[in-house]
Amino acid sequence: MPRTGSTSTAAGPTLAVVAREAGVSVPTASKVVNGRDDVAPETRRRVTEALDRLGYVRRPRFDARPPRLVDLVMHSLEDSASGAVLHGAERAAHDAGLEIVVSTAPVRARAERPERGWLDRIVPRGSAGILFHLAGPSEPQYAWLEHHRIPFVLIDPVHEPPPGAVSVGGANWQGGVTATEHLLSLGHERIAVVAGHRSTMAVTARIAGYRSALAAAGVRHRPEYVRQAGSGEDAARCRMRELLDLPEPPTAVFVCSDRMVPGVYEALSETGLRVPDDMSVVGFDDLPEARWLTPAVTTVRQPLSEMAATALHLLLRMMDGNRPESTRTELSTRLVERASTAGPAPGCP
Amino acid sequence: MPRTGSTSTAAGPTLAVVAREAGVSVPTASKVVNGRDDVAPETRRRVTEALDRLGYVRRPRFDARPPRLVDLVMHSLEDSASGAVLHGAERAAHDAGLEIVVSTAPVRARAERPERGWLDRIVPRGSAGILFHLAGPSEPQYAWLEHHRIPFVLIDPVHEPPPGAVSVGGANWQGGVTATEHLLSLGHERIAVVAGHRSTMAVTARIAGYRSALAAAGVRHRPEYVRQAGSGEDAARCRMRELLDLPEPPTAVFVCSDRMVPGVYEALSETGLRVPDDMSVVGFDDLPEARWLTPAVTTVRQPLSEMAATALHLLLRMMDGNRPESTRTELSTRLVERASTAGPAPGCP
Repeated sequence: MPRTGSTSTAAGPTLAVVAREAGVSVPTASKVVNGRDDVAPETRRRVTEALDRLGYVRRPRFDARPPRLVDLVMHSLEDSASGAVLHGAERAAHDAGLEIVVSTAPVRARAERPERGWLDRIVPRGSAGILFHLAGPSEPQYAWLEHHRIPFVLIDPVHEPPPGAVSVGGANWQGGVTATEHLLSLGHERIAVVAGHRSTMAVTARIAGYRSALAAAGVRHRPEYVRQAGSGEDAARCRMRELLDLPEPPTAVFVCSDRMVPGVYEALSETGLRVPDDMSVVGFDDLPEARWLTPAVTTVRQPLSEMAATALHLLLRMMDGNRPESTRTELSTRLVERASTAGPAPGCP
Repeated sequence: MPRTGSTSTAAGPTLAVVAREAGVSVPTASKVVNGRDDVAPETRRRVTEALDRLGYVRRPRFDARPPRLVDLVMHSLEDSASGAVLHGAERAAHDAGLEIVVSTAPVRARAERPERGWLDRIVPRGSAGILFHLAGPSEPQYAWLEHHRIPFVLIDPVHEPPPGAVSVGGANWQGGVTATEHLLSLGHERIAVVAGHRSTMAVTARIAGYRSALAAAGVRHRPEYVRQAGSGEDAARCRMRELLDLPEPPTAVFVCSDRMVPGVYEALSETGLRVPDDMSVVGFDDLPEARWLTPAVTTVRQPLSEMAATALHLLLRMMDGNRPESTRTELSTRLVERASTAGPAPGCP
């Protein structure tokens, strides 16, 4: 590589030298170096040739400032909720001049705590802050984050967060009330619940909302109508079959996540029951599948993108040293009426 | 903050001092500092107290080495294909000890080139390499990446990549053949196509596959059966309506993306036509909606996660200075038979 004596350094020639060589101004040379579009092709060619001839290489300024990286540690990237969460976090980060590093931390079967992977990666690199979706740090990891003053915010945490931890979620209890009130208003009294794992905070709150709405309407709560276990489609199918096998089966079912609705629909279709004629179904979340299933699912919408953006805004404030007064932010849910609910069949007692 | 004289520095005491203060070994103190789980709670408490008492703060080693960050620049995070792409890239990156920074670069309406945003962020930070999904660099951006020796790989590029650029895609032509052969084998001859934007590489190849399969079977190609424009559900609905209004409407339709199938189903349902009795439908991609729609969509599966993982492996080789001999890698597609195809109705000529 040719060098131009006193005007070059060990790192190669300066941009001024390149500009002179190409017969352009330094700002024009800079535009080409930075890959900008607003340079005439012929000028670009001259500058590029000068860059190559002089061996100019723009060094990434790794050490100029710490990277403004925020970590998003997600329970899964394949879940249909993760697109909305990523979208909300990425847009908000982009607006704040931050970038998002995505990791997955599959929730462990027993402990339901994330793997160590993300921590091992974040330790040597440093992080301006961390958002967790569904996943969350274990007790020692939490202590580690606190000690190193790495702020974090939990989006829709599966378990009760550690004391003082900041989290953002949907209004789960209120959503459970909304779903149940909708079914009550259509005339249903035999309303069942199909839900995921017993231990998750969100599901506990949604079922509590269901019970509150029943109680407010003076409708007897039947424990056999609440079916929990597993969270996949197969589990949902089995829970729905159990409900249909009861001596007095329900006329409506509140499914605590849209993810489980395909399984519920399958059980109904296997039994020859039609939605909503023979069984009304209300979901939760408003995931893409709610719109695509037939009939389209009436559901309680959780604003997932907005929850992620809110979490990022809280994180920004914490990065500036301001701890939010309230550790839990809940964004309202709302009913999206589609085609899966109707009044109970006339023949029902 | 108390200091311990000669054993501390401006950056605080060393870990050895902390370990002595807590009465534990240095490896044990290190475990606590690194947030590991395998330390007894009482030991953790003693070390944490010593850390706080001595004001020890482990500094992230920002400057120890450049971050091993790979950029994933995506056309969208909300598209139902993006989850699979992210998942494949993240797993492969994780296995290689790399991390993924996610950006979106919405494809521009006219130029169909990404915004500059990602470049402005990547320039000051540096990047070990870039994966693009659907999006791709403009000519000047491409020159910039080449000049700075930042390797990149295109996943399923919308347009013909610049000469020499490395890309990974599905076997689109073969997939078009597969879809059409499936419909031919069921006895259809009046087979139409609903496709997205005319200018995309993938769609052009899929339609070419369709025509090849028709020609091989000796079935006449009817230009009026190929409908292209827009890519959303509404566009698909309108294109399907146009096909149904033809003097001799088709008995089967190859929809070049599962994304468009909901619109096609809607047009059919509005017209009182049943799938597959009155119209067979084959999709492409095997996106989640293909499974959730009723009837579930027979489709040509593109291995999106595997394509992203392959792109990352190619990028790793390029980061090591090895340019792949072949600039285009295509992964095979395969037919996933579901419930949306059957033989033509007996009444059809």
